[in-house]
Amino acid sequence: MSKFLKPIQWKNDSLVLLDQTLLPVKIRYLRLTRVSQVWEAIKKLSVRGAPAIGVAAAFGMYLALRNSKGEKSFFSEAQKSAAFLNSARPTAVNLRWATDRVLRLMEDHRDEKLPEILRRILSEARHMVHEDEEICRSIGRHGLKLLRNGSTLMTHCNAGGLATTGYGTALAPVYAAKEKGVHVEVFAGETRPLLQGARLTALELQRAGVPVTLICDNMAAAVMALKKVDLIIVGADRVVANGDFANKIGTYSLAILAREHGVPFYCATPLSTIDLKLTSGTKIPIEERSHEEITRGFGRPTAPKGIGVFNPAFDVTPHRYITGFITEKGIVKPPFKKNLKALFKTC
Amino acid sequence: MSKFLKPIQWKNDSLVLLDQTLLPVKIRYLRLTRVSQVWEAIKKLSVRGAPAIGVAAAFGMYLALRNSKGEKSFFSEAQKSAAFLNSARPTAVNLRWATDRVLRLMEDHRDEKLPEILRRILSEARHMVHEDEEICRSIGRHGLKLLRNGSTLMTHCNAGGLATTGYGTALAPVYAAKEKGVHVEVFAGETRPLLQGARLTALELQRAGVPVTLICDNMAAAVMALKKVDLIIVGADRVVANGDFANKIGTYSLAILAREHGVPFYCATPLSTIDLKLTSGTKIPIEERSHEEITRGFGRPTAPKGIGVFNPAFDVTPHRYITGFITEKGIVKPPFKKNLKALFKTC
Repeated sequence: MSKFLKPIQWKNDSLVLLDQTLLPVKIRYLRLTRVSQVWEAIKKLSVRGAPAIGVAAAFGMYLALRNSKGEKSFFSEAQKSAAFLNSARPTAVNLRWATDRVLRLMEDHRDEKLPEILRRILSEARHMVHEDEEICRSIGRHGLKLLRNGSTLMTHCNAGGLATTGYGTALAPVYAAKEKGVHVEVFAGETRPLLQGARLTALELQRAGVPVTLICDNMAAAVMALKKVDLIIVGADRVVANGDFANKIGTYSLAILAREHGVPFYCATPLSTIDLKLTSGTKIPIEERSHEEITRGFGRPTAPKGIGVFNPAFDVTPHRYITGFITEKGIVKPPFKKNLKALFKTC
Repeated sequence: MSKFLKPIQWKNDSLVLLDQTLLPVKIRYLRLTRVSQVWEAIKKLSVRGAPAIGVAAAFGMYLALRNSKGEKSFFSEAQKSAAFLNSARPTAVNLRWATDRVLRLMEDHRDEKLPEILRRILSEARHMVHEDEEICRSIGRHGLKLLRNGSTLMTHCNAGGLATTGYGTALAPVYAAKEKGVHVEVFAGETRPLLQGARLTALELQRAGVPVTLICDNMAAAVMALKKVDLIIVGADRVVANGDFANKIGTYSLAILAREHGVPFYCATPLSTIDLKLTSGTKIPIEERSHEEITRGFGRPTAPKGIGVFNPAFDVTPHRYITGFITEKGIVKPPFKKNLKALFKTC
């Protein structure tokens, strides 16, 4: 498993991010030293995936504050930087989860000297990298129970190592299976418009030696009808209290098609992506992105000039379509309202 | 409505086809004088859409035979040319429908001199252009009954003017509405991998002054959940006796999503696309196309080298998902087995 790419590293006082916009053609790293660069990297999807952007934002907080001029402005600067980083992408809750965590840490150590607080922030961000890997491995162990030798899994977008600090959420059970010698095959939906499935999921599974078949998103139903698909596992950008969740556009469609074909439909998610403050998926803000992602997404025009476009980056899957959530604390089955809440009580 | 592009014309002893692979960026015409060129144009999708490739194949028959050396080989050459043209694409039944029609015509006039038979073949092919337009306009008139002022329709791929000789099947009701001053809006799925929705449907609706919103295929469910979609109309490549039908990959998915959201789902089809010889959709041959359509579809690699790909060009929608067929003889409702057969009895 040495072929895992490392999307997020802290090296030489800089945040080093794998530029995922260039994959699979080029493997190039960005070296970021300012919070504005982190914001831009998140906005442009150089780093993406709910867990990964959370960790990147924690480092962003450190970069924002390390040159702070003085104690007076330090805490208000932190508030502003958190709001700034949170604004990069509205749907995933992990940005807020990470910046809140840094703000709470600062609050808990308010009486210490600035260099000491700064040291704690950097240490916390670095800790989050390791913690994320542990969480992903735990999701993998729990998800592995759903796989048998010869299982075929379908996934959408990329909730793999590249969406986290290296091991993935939806793909973690696949890597866990690989490590145990359990043979699993994957159908990867290419995930228009930005092709995270084709560019990222296909790449990381190929590097890990997992057999993968790439399809266009509109082929998922035909594959379920024609071929054996044992289960679907996707990631999440935000899971809310009743079990509704937002994930990459196309997830909702896949959930409906899964039910129609009797295919179990799972969402792999760390607790950091669960937002119990929202009661229903209808309340999740859905990011709409540039029309050009659809009309010129491949470097040349593929639609007539001036055409109307609707480009929501996410959709919401209502909880009634979901078989279960695979979390680091185990697999959560319905009733989700009660059982998701219980995850946090036992913290 | 003068802005209709003409996909198929007979000019100066040549078949003139709009090269649809270059749309929407370039409007360029191919001038074909040999049957091998017609085969290639069909194979490469320079001309596509079940009705259009049928008409193109009829001209192909003429081009194949017009330089025939003599009476002895004439009829066997015709059989070979028909088989050759039919082989260009396996799923749509219109190729066979058109070449059979030419063969029957030849049989009916077997005793005539070759120049006279040739004249009849060309005349028949030219007649099919006008006949197709009449059929499409009739589909438009019948389909118009399903639309009200303010209706929003969703479609997939291109079953518009560009898939026929100019007026379309699935889009014919939209053009009929436009002519009557009935305001209709359209959501067009881009239709991966070859983007016929983005490149062709968006283009022709825009030229006709019909408001159109382009979406990626995986957004259809979200649009149905978030926005008003009054009905879906798609085309067909082959409808079989029980009402199952093959159409562009993604159609089956759309049919399931339509049912889940209570959206009526119609298939617009001329009788020439109905194949009563097949009893069930499982018997329709499904064309699989090059992996590069998915992995390098836009001129640059969008997936890792050597990745596995599944690229079926069509899927089969079982009849239970279909609200009705819009044909030139009216709207056909279930039971389809009985009611589709009845269309032909009243010929």
